[in-house]
Amino acid sequence: MSDPNPRKRVLSGMRPTGRLHLGNYMGALYNWVRLQDEYECYFFIADIHALTTDYADPGDLSDKSFQVAVDFLSAGLDPEKCVIFRQSAVPAHSELHTLLSMITPLGWLERVPTYKDQQEQLREKDLNTYGFLGYPLLQSADILLYQPDFVPVGQDQVAHVELTREVARRFNQLYSSAETPEVAAAKSDKEKIKAEVGDNAIEAEILPEPKVLLTPSPKLPGLDGRKMSKSYGNTIMLSDAPDDIRKKLKTMVTDSARVRRTDPGNPDVCPVGDLHKVFSNKEKIEKVYAGCTTASIGCIECKGWCADSIIEEIEPIRIRRAELEANPERVYQILADGAERARARAAETMQQVRSVIGLG
Amino acid sequence: MSDPNPRKRVLSGMRPTGRLHLGNYMGALYNWVRLQDEYECYFFIADIHALTTDYADPGDLSDKSFQVAVDFLSAGLDPEKCVIFRQSAVPAHSELHTLLSMITPLGWLERVPTYKDQQEQLREKDLNTYGFLGYPLLQSADILLYQPDFVPVGQDQVAHVELTREVARRFNQLYSSAETPEVAAAKSDKEKIKAEVGDNAIEAEILPEPKVLLTPSPKLPGLDGRKMSKSYGNTIMLSDAPDDIRKKLKTMVTDSARVRRTDPGNPDVCPVGDLHKVFSNKEKIEKVYAGCTTASIGCIECKGWCADSIIEEIEPIRIRRAELEANPERVYQILADGAERARARAAETMQQVRSVIGLG
Ligand code: SF4
Ligand code: SF4
Repeated sequence: MSDPNPRKRVLSGMRPTGRLHLGNYMGALYNWVRLQDEYECYFFIADIHALTTDYADPGDLSDKSFQVAVDFLSAGLDPEKCVIFRQSAVPAHSELHTLLSMITPLGWLERVPTYKDQQEQLREKDLNTYGFLGYPLLQSADILLYQPDFVPVGQDQVAHVELTREVARRFNQLYSSAETPEVAAAKSDKEKIKAEVGDNAIEAEILPEPKVLLTPSPKLPGLDGRKMSKSYGNTIMLSDAPDDIRKKLKTMVTDSARVRRTDPGNPDVCPVGDLHKVFSNKEKIEKVYAGCTTASIGCIECKGWCADSIIEEIEPIRIRRAELEANPERVYQILADGAERARARAAETMQQVRSVIGLG
Repeated sequence: MSDPNPRKRVLSGMRPTGRLHLGNYMGALYNWVRLQDEYECYFFIADIHALTTDYADPGDLSDKSFQVAVDFLSAGLDPEKCVIFRQSAVPAHSELHTLLSMITPLGWLERVPTYKDQQEQLREKDLNTYGFLGYPLLQSADILLYQPDFVPVGQDQVAHVELTREVARRFNQLYSSAETPEVAAAKSDKEKIKAEVGDNAIEAEILPEPKVLLTPSPKLPGLDGRKMSKSYGNTIMLSDAPDDIRKKLKTMVTDSARVRRTDPGNPDVCPVGDLHKVFSNKEKIEKVYAGCTTASIGCIECKGWCADSIIEEIEPIRIRRAELEANPERVYQILADGAERARARAAETMQQVRSVIGLG
């Protein structure tokens, strides 16, 4: 807190699902790359979270984490600008989670909207576990550990940040010393009041409530028109070569009302149209609208343009990715450096947390 | 595992309730002092556990932990022979707890007999928290982290060790590699079988199921005849001076049937008799029986003898305790050294755990 004008801090994480697809990229990573210039950023690979649902069959978590790290870096996260690390490399995530578990009512966790939903959706897995119930609290610990100002999330994650804020509030109510050292040291009542209303009084909150930084997450359909998702097998990967992308696009569903080449179509109800809106420039989008609605272009031509746009966006990523994959030691080193910086930052928070509880 | 004939390992902990009383001493510490000569022992101050029930008002946990450490050492735990540390100084307790939470069915925790009991008993506290539900699992992590052979517990704790064994079993089923390196390297089937039935096959279990080492916990009544407990205010402390002990004994309840000095009594239904059975020698106990049942001694005399026995047992403890209290740096140093040794041992287990899950 000695920096007179510090950058605001931001924290976000992503599960290690292996190589990332366009949906992961546009849903989070693309935003992160923009955030790193403006904020002090901590980005982590949530490998412990992966176990909340996949404990029985985590697959090769180590390799999946490596692949996500490669995609982070290839997409433009710069280890000189932000801190990139694996959650499991910073034991303080579990430490704070365990301490916060003591003050968190079971009802708060049972009421998280995604709790029952996900148990329903992932019925084939046994998610009636202690860890799955506690998963939003682990997320709260992930966040609060870095005392961030903002958490960049999409609309669907806002409820989780709200829980995080509630947990922080409860912690601060239970433990934060009413008096900062400055207040305690104040000699007269007048000095006391001055100290209490000053900035330092606010800093007495050990776990400040982070704010939501709502980030755009554009609609990103997969090849079958449903949401792009690994589990649907409808993805375009950041690691796909241009030819693969062209081939995949050819199989993509289109406006179902455009049956013949001579039928006009509507890009607003066409998944290919949605991809254009994300990846193509204004000029091209106008050409698509004009051509499609008048049947003056065919879907094959339109898909070719779409493939061009996507390739233009991700080909530099694919090339960087190939370089990094050939250089795994460099990736491991970046993760190791990131973990060290994350541990150091986490230690600051934990020192305050332990001390106010009496564990230090 | 390279030591051809290692001592069996033992792990146990105690909550930091502040200065210990005779009940704490005879219930655990007295046994521990005997165990340290025969086993490789890890004894910890369970300061994180204290938060499961006392999160809202932990008191001065730091000082309470210090006092317990002083009592450990005064009672004869020898840092040259065993490892003494604070739970919160070893983050791996929380790490393993968090990882084990993923595989632990909620039902296992809800069914732990003490769960509903304690919520009832401690009704004035809000124990409907995630951490209180997870408390037996934190205990399992405490234990499994050191891969001990035995856990010394009284009869009332056997159910908790059973949960620990179940959790270990589940972990091993889910994650332990079926093949040890020796088995994998075996060339022929014959070699494979030999390797599989050998010791190494057993060592493939990362979290061996610890066994209960049932330790005697004699009936130890407090001054009012109920179980000696801080919450009843009926305790004799290890730090009580001889005069205090004599005074306290004078107020102790006796066989209620012995109303007058001339009435015979029965030491078997007298709390003072119970204390004699714990602290007096055979000769003195015989004198008590003979004198009490024939009314040839009075209760005042009998209580004096009892005070003598207790003082004889704990006066050396009180003297060592005074020395250590005057030398807090020495105590902190012992705890710091112990924490370092515990962290090193815990790191061995965590390295195996992480690696088999794919977090390494
Ligand atoms: S022309 Fe393009 S936007 Fe129109 S239906 Fe075909 S693929 Fe979709
Ligand atoms: S003489 Fe001793 S054992 Fe008998 S009733 Fe009195 S105190 Fe109890």
